[in-house]
Amino acid sequence: MKTEWLRNTIKDFEPYYVAPIAEKYVINANENYFNVLSIPSLKKKLVEALDTFKPQIYPKPMADDLRKALAEYTGQAPENIICGNGGDEMITYLLGTFLNPGDTILVHTPTFDMYELGAETLGARTIKVRDLAGYRRDKEGILEAVKKYQPKVTVICNPNNPTGDLLPASFIEEVLKAADNLVFVDEAYMEFAQKESVLPLIKKYPNLVVLRTLSKAFGLAGMRCGYLAADKEIIDAIGKIKAPYNLNAFTQLFAPIVLKHREEILRVRDDIVKERNRLFDELVKIPGLTVYPSCTNFLLVQVESKHEEIFKALKAKDILVKIYRNSGELPNAYRITVTTRDVDDALLEVFRKELS
Amino acid sequence: MKTEWLRNTIKDFEPYYVAPIAEKYVINANENYFNVLSIPSLKKKLVEALDTFKPQIYPKPMADDLRKALAEYTGQAPENIICGNGGDEMITYLLGTFLNPGDTILVHTPTFDMYELGAETLGARTIKVRDLAGYRRDKEGILEAVKKYQPKVTVICNPNNPTGDLLPASFIEEVLKAADNLVFVDEAYMEFAQKESVLPLIKKYPNLVVLRTLSKAFGLAGMRCGYLAADKEIIDAIGKIKAPYNLNAFTQLFAPIVLKHREEILRVRDDIVKERNRLFDELVKIPGLTVYPSCTNFLLVQVESKHEEIFKALKAKDILVKIYRNSGELPNAYRITVTTRDVDDALLEVFRKELS
Repeated sequence: MKTEWLRNTIKDFEPYYVAPIAEKYVINANENYFNVLSIPSLKKKLVEALDTFKPQIYPKPMADDLRKALAEYTGQAPENIICGNGGDEMITYLLGTFLNPGDTILVHTPTFDMYELGAETLGARTIKVRDLAGYRRDKEGILEAVKKYQPKVTVICNPNNPTGDLLPASFIEEVLKAADNLVFVDEAYMEFAQKESVLPLIKKYPNLVVLRTLSKAFGLAGMRCGYLAADKEIIDAIGKIKAPYNLNAFTQLFAPIVLKHREEILRVRDDIVKERNRLFDELVKIPGLTVYPSCTNFLLVQVESKHEEIFKALKAKDILVKIYRNSGELPNAYRITVTTRDVDDALLEVFRKELS
Repeated sequence: MKTEWLRNTIKDFEPYYVAPIAEKYVINANENYFNVLSIPSLKKKLVEALDTFKPQIYPKPMADDLRKALAEYTGQAPENIICGNGGDEMITYLLGTFLNPGDTILVHTPTFDMYELGAETLGARTIKVRDLAGYRRDKEGILEAVKKYQPKVTVICNPNNPTGDLLPASFIEEVLKAADNLVFVDEAYMEFAQKESVLPLIKKYPNLVVLRTLSKAFGLAGMRCGYLAADKEIIDAIGKIKAPYNLNAFTQLFAPIVLKHREEILRVRDDIVKERNRLFDELVKIPGLTVYPSCTNFLLVQVESKHEEIFKALKAKDILVKIYRNSGELPNAYRITVTTRDVDDALLEVFRKELS
């Protein structure tokens, strides 16, 4: 291949890294441990639905049934919702609808890589406002930067991945007021916070776009189901550039069934939140380790020493966590997905042993 | 929404049109009439696979099992294949990996809209070489234009949608030799032609990229499974910009099962080809109607008069075909998907009645 064939913006592109997986306990990607198909009535409904499923027919372009189910769940009108192939696709669509080459987005940092990667691919620039000590967002810094740069899109990940920090909705409302352009709030983990969602602000702010997903609390990472909620005009604009058949028909069939069983599924979420609090309390006690308060299904921890050794010791115990290497922003850090007590106990044992 | 928020390239964008569907016989989107789930052993395998399916886990980024199955089917190595969320996504990825704003793509016309739409979104220009009379491709014109413009990507849809015309692989080899840059051959309908595929040329030409799909002959339009075959370096470059989890886990589970049952499924393809030939022979006899030879699962027809009336008469019989309106390239045309004899007989009745 001739290198000159490549699009200029991706010539030096570092793609999103997905670690190869050999471990039994994979707690590096914030997946849910719970399999919704283990709910007998849900599994039965799905298998029955397969009896009339027609895989040969193109999916519904606007995922009508799923859109209605998500509207009901989020308290929005269906016309304020657009669904797609995971949160990743929704980020790509949002940026692709609005960013010109040379435009800017504003992010707080550290945060999810995809915003910057998406902007970079489009030839847009990323302005970064670094977190304060303890990975608390720099509210004043964000507001000042919004006013100073008026970026095309201001991105707020709330609660934030990978730090777990939750900003109050009242602060995001201040950002919405200060911004002449779009404010994009990624609430992928909001079901674990259960407060401070800005979904109710959509009616009031035509520049607000909220991302949600069924990948985390609903345990459907494999099914790729993300959605945006926003003013109808924003949704319609994104709909114009959306691939006509972006969300496969099986996910359109499966996800509404899952949403109907949400009471049982969100009870698992409650267990994860409890287990997260327990794991936090145990990790705090370990000397040489810092753990940050989290409103998500993961915890960010940092060690003073033995960063690579602990990662290897965890691997030896068949546990894969997300490790941040050569990262100025997250020195000596791991991100640990909270699943079940037994996995966390095995993990705690390694930390205690290595840091004693 | 402020109009100035919109990306410049999409301000006047006309999106891909998907017709609303109310009819019983939907033969406007070249879908397969056959439901692969009606094969008892296939359905059984799928339901069994659901017993160990984990929807909570992210899909494999490179769809390893599916990639292997497709490699085996196409006679390629797995490293020469990349899979994604339908042919549409693969077109977007291909163009997104290589096109800069201001670059050019070359298409013959009329053809599938997505190449131009994708290029337009990226700020690239489309050069068009119009078909000769009878919607045969202008081979000399294409070769001349390739040499003259050296477009970043030369697109050949073969067999062509919506005309059904098949170019010989030897001609595409001439284009490959003439082109300094990439040649993209969309073989979405190649299973219906069963000859002239350029897959065997991939070893020889590092500038060749071939698109295939399971949407048509394999009857999986709803599952969104497209794939590209090309030199490993091209595949790796596309892999760099690909969303890490672009193809959902259920399609990765389902499609290899379908490929294992391909003998039975391709027998249906044979039936469709026979029925296409029968329908062609019947349509030719109708005065005032022109039908074009096709190597696909559809037929392009044109009428001398009563274009809108016939469309409505078909609708009244619960038949939806694809109609080309206000199209300089395809005046008074419809595209008819070939399915079963009874549907085609109902369609023939309308044409005969309206044109008698």
